[in-house]
Amino acid sequence: MSAAFHKGIATVSLSGVLSDKLTAIADAGFDGVEIFDNDLIAAPMHPAEVATRCADLGLSVDLFQPVRDVEGVRPEEFGRVLHRLRRKFETAQQLGAPVVLACSNVSPTAIDDPGLRAEQLHRIGELAAAYGIVVAYEALAWGRHVNRVRQSWRAVQDAGHPAITLAVDTFHMLARRDDGAALDGIPGDRIGFLQVADAPMLDMNVLEWSRHFRCFPGQGTLDVAGVVSATLEAGYAGPVSLEVFSDVVREAPPAVTARDAMRSLLFLQDQVTRELPTVAAHDVAFVELAAPPGDSQVGNTLAALGFRQVGVHRTKPVTWWRNGGASIVLNEQEGASHGRPQALGLVAPSVCAIQDRARALDWPELRRTRGADETALPGITAPSGIHVFISAPPGEPDDWHLDFGSGDFGSGDADADGGGWLGVDHVGVTVTPDRLDEETAFRRVLLGLEPGSLQEFIQPHGRLQSRALRPERGGLRVVLNVSQVGAATDRPSGITQLAFACRDAVAEVDRLRAAGVELMPVPDNYYDDLDARLEVDPGLLRTVREHRLLYDRDDAGGELLHAYTMPREGGHFIEILERRGGYDGYGAANTHVRLAAQLRE
Amino acid sequence: MSAAFHKGIATVSLSGVLSDKLTAIADAGFDGVEIFDNDLIAAPMHPAEVATRCADLGLSVDLFQPVRDVEGVRPEEFGRVLHRLRRKFETAQQLGAPVVLACSNVSPTAIDDPGLRAEQLHRIGELAAAYGIVVAYEALAWGRHVNRVRQSWRAVQDAGHPAITLAVDTFHMLARRDDGAALDGIPGDRIGFLQVADAPMLDMNVLEWSRHFRCFPGQGTLDVAGVVSATLEAGYAGPVSLEVFSDVVREAPPAVTARDAMRSLLFLQDQVTRELPTVAAHDVAFVELAAPPGDSQVGNTLAALGFRQVGVHRTKPVTWWRNGGASIVLNEQEGASHGRPQALGLVAPSVCAIQDRARALDWPELRRTRGADETALPGITAPSGIHVFISAPPGEPDDWHLDFGSGDFGSGDADADGGGWLGVDHVGVTVTPDRLDEETAFRRVLLGLEPGSLQEFIQPHGRLQSRALRPERGGLRVVLNVSQVGAATDRPSGITQLAFACRDAVAEVDRLRAAGVELMPVPDNYYDDLDARLEVDPGLLRTVREHRLLYDRDDAGGELLHAYTMPREGGHFIEILERRGGYDGYGAANTHVRLAAQLRE
Repeated sequence: MSAAFHKGIATVSLSGVLSDKLTAIADAGFDGVEIFDNDLIAAPMHPAEVATRCADLGLSVDLFQPVRDVEGVRPEEFGRVLHRLRRKFETAQQLGAPVVLACSNVSPTAIDDPGLRAEQLHRIGELAAAYGIVVAYEALAWGRHVNRVRQSWRAVQDAGHPAITLAVDTFHMLARRDDGAALDGIPGDRIGFLQVADAPMLDMNVLEWSRHFRCFPGQGTLDVAGVVSATLEAGYAGPVSLEVFSDVVREAPPAVTARDAMRSLLFLQDQVTRELPTVAAHDVAFVELAAPPGDSQVGNTLAALGFRQVGVHRTKPVTWWRNGGASIVLNEQEGASHGRPQALGLVAPSVCAIQDRARALDWPELRRTRGADETALPGITAPSGIHVFISAPPGEPDDWHLDFGSGDFGSGDADADGGGWLGVDHVGVTVTPDRLDEETAFRRVLLGLEPGSLQEFIQPHGRLQSRALRPERGGLRVVLNVSQVGAATDRPSGITQLAFACRDAVAEVDRLRAAGVELMPVPDNYYDDLDARLEVDPGLLRTVREHRLLYDRDDAGGELLHAYTMPREGGHFIEILERRGGYDGYGAANTHVRLAAQLRE
Repeated sequence: MSAAFHKGIATVSLSGVLSDKLTAIADAGFDGVEIFDNDLIAAPMHPAEVATRCADLGLSVDLFQPVRDVEGVRPEEFGRVLHRLRRKFETAQQLGAPVVLACSNVSPTAIDDPGLRAEQLHRIGELAAAYGIVVAYEALAWGRHVNRVRQSWRAVQDAGHPAITLAVDTFHMLARRDDGAALDGIPGDRIGFLQVADAPMLDMNVLEWSRHFRCFPGQGTLDVAGVVSATLEAGYAGPVSLEVFSDVVREAPPAVTARDAMRSLLFLQDQVTRELPTVAAHDVAFVELAAPPGDSQVGNTLAALGFRQVGVHRTKPVTWWRNGGASIVLNEQEGASHGRPQALGLVAPSVCAIQDRARALDWPELRRTRGADETALPGITAPSGIHVFISAPPGEPDDWHLDFGSGDFGSGDADADGGGWLGVDHVGVTVTPDRLDEETAFRRVLLGLEPGSLQEFIQPHGRLQSRALRPERGGLRVVLNVSQVGAATDRPSGITQLAFACRDAVAEVDRLRAAGVELMPVPDNYYDDLDARLEVDPGLLRTVREHRLLYDRDDAGGELLHAYTMPREGGHFIEILERRGGYDGYGAANTHVRLAAQLRE
């Protein structure tokens, strides 16, 4: 299998007018383009001018799409179909598009007669051939009679004309629960085109699902790579072309979408070829806070939380603070905003592998000055704007600790440090609704984290959507949050939640309160409900009520005790949690209480 | 049937925290409230304090809701259910709520055994009675075994306990296609509670439909009034209580939602009692434009469009302009913005009836100074902020023409005026996504217009949703538009489209161009597609191409020829259209071309 495939995208996948779309597609490095008929109809450029424009931009015109409802029509209406196709084939010729996509008939009046379908497709093939065009026939998932790929393949075979070929579309196949195996025995030279799109699994009308919720490969949950691999293995050598439309993409700037789209094809290529090493980040190394130079407030807050300074960066105005197994790096840069988390250090088994992967997948590397003795610590900017630094595991050459020359940095183990917190349990990152797919892909595709399902919580002024991501092995947990609130409401963004694990939540909240840390108030009604819901042991209920801890219990008896601070400037807050007996969740049952209690009146 | 019912609303229907919700509910004039358990759990007030607060606000606590998964559970787990119910009944007692809502079991482990269900509900009834509480048992539309109202009614009968009653919920019934007839034979005194919600008809998972898309009665398409009438006719005398949640409501300010909710109950009451006269507006009387005093630009534009001034208001700095059957009123107020449409005059058979209806349904009347000799012309402010004035038909005492003392105002008929336009064909109003339901309700409930289905169009930077509303009789057409674009993009609002009907679109566009009106350019590709799609007669195709008219044809052969201006400051534009052979649509096939062509690069 060849290492790289011809990368295409349909103009319908981007917002804007045709000329903007073509520029964005070329700028993102695509090889070719599908011209969507409505984009052309609304454009002031003649098809021949579009062809010239594409050539100037270095783009091949791979496909003109779609023509609809061309087969299974009443014989007396077929003349009109041929008239329509003549005009559209002329347009395709002017565009220089070798292939025209024909969708299976969706009309309620479509006739389910394989003989009629074959005869009409054959005549369409003759017409196409006269224009030097090939038709790729696609089974729309909501086609009236042809809606599975084996049905469209049968129609192509029955048509018996070389200009009638099969269109493979990952969305339509996977939406109907067909996978790569459905292509068994189909010769690659009879496949005229391959369109790719992913989607989250949703229980809804398939047409609405398709129109509003498609996404780029790596952003959804469909096995796109499986279908693409099967198509390539069959011998198909044409373009792999993205056709994605969604409410998100329609509103996003075309340049942003095009870049995101190209990354998704690079990822898809990697899934198919397996040429890049795959590695997963497995732990949090540190969280980086920014602090204005000379301002002691952030340091005081860290001290109140139980952190103490244990190292100074060799060359930069950066200090390392530690509470047991949890590390915070304080960056006193010029122009820093006030004490907000701005970057995340992650531990991965191979720093270089992630760096190579980031470059190959076109994720922007952070430019930084690196001293002669400093570790590599490559930085990549996530779509949310936060920086992610990759460190080697403790003790290896590219271990980030080595940049903090002097100081007591021990083994990174809490016990060796005489107690303290166990480490960073999870980090919450808040993104805007239109960036959730891209941010998920960043973590999944680049960092090897697996996304969980999307949870939804009611907050006082909107909805909070939340998705946890974790590696197959390791303690790293990242939670992506999307705040669906009215346009008028401020929404925080970036790293908004730092959750630290401890051994004894009761002792910790006592200590924090004594140190002057303001914890979120928990209403009394919460404890009454806890008793009703979970029949919590009276002693334990008394303890959590007295210490204003939140509590959860899973079906296996695992328990969570946790507490939050109030949000600080910029909207970020801290959680302290104690997991007992293998509790593996995040206390979702308590989220609505937190969302109300953290609102300052 | 009594004229007024007890009006309630569930706290879950509003955004905010509990205290804000209660204040908004009381301010909107509700009689009572359902306390949603999660709102209480997250609130710092003890249930008894909530009871006091409600009493202080003049609200009765009608219901505490919900308790879930209480019946059809394994006998060994039923003890835990009773423990939970004891706690919740205590809370209901403290709240002073006489009724607790229990939803049918949704657990995959629920047991479908009518005997077990009856026995467990009976024991729940005994427990409730001990607390002086009545349970209203509701068939959730997605209940595991009980999801239709006849099933829950059977369970209530089998339970055989006076404290176990039936909950009627319009959404759950109508979502499962049960209507008021499903309540036949159920005595009203066995109905413990009535919850009401409307929804648009959507083909999707019913749980998701319920969670995200409910709306207030009059905003959706379900026959809420039918179920409410049947419940009241059965003898139910308790609260009629709104339980509405949707993505829109969760983000809207609680005071706005509460006012909207109250209007919807007033409307529902009117649908049930039929006490208010129903009248429909049937024609456009005029469109009002604002113009800065002394600025001649708007007048010049009107003149170029073919309007001439035919009257001056008796007392105000307002002039009347006319082109055949189309009238524009130019209001040269102090502080007016530049030449934007700001109000709509409509003709209705009874001015007083609509005015009374507006008052009874709590739609805000516009305060205006009215001279001694002036017509009534009551004004109401729509949710979008535009003003709607109601005039009597021509020649009647409250005919708006009478305010323009002198001048040639003839019969309002185009022919009598020696030609000109036929009139206002339709008016497009653009609203924000969160106001579409309310704006639809305003026109449906107050003005008697029937909403059509929601259409969706792709625009270069988002999606346009569009819904036409028309009276049963008369030429009035209002199109509501919602521009679903990214947060960063400006969106126009208010009256954005004025479509005028004419006899000869070809002649009109020639005349307009000669008068210097800039019409929207139509791309050449559009005409090639027109030929492909519709096989337009070559002569006609040549005509529309030469005159850059858009064209559409319906299945019956009716035809539309139309043209647009480019949008003016504020985003409004003008359409000229000619309907031939009974064409009744709006040229939807051409909308995507307009949306692209009207974008100024």
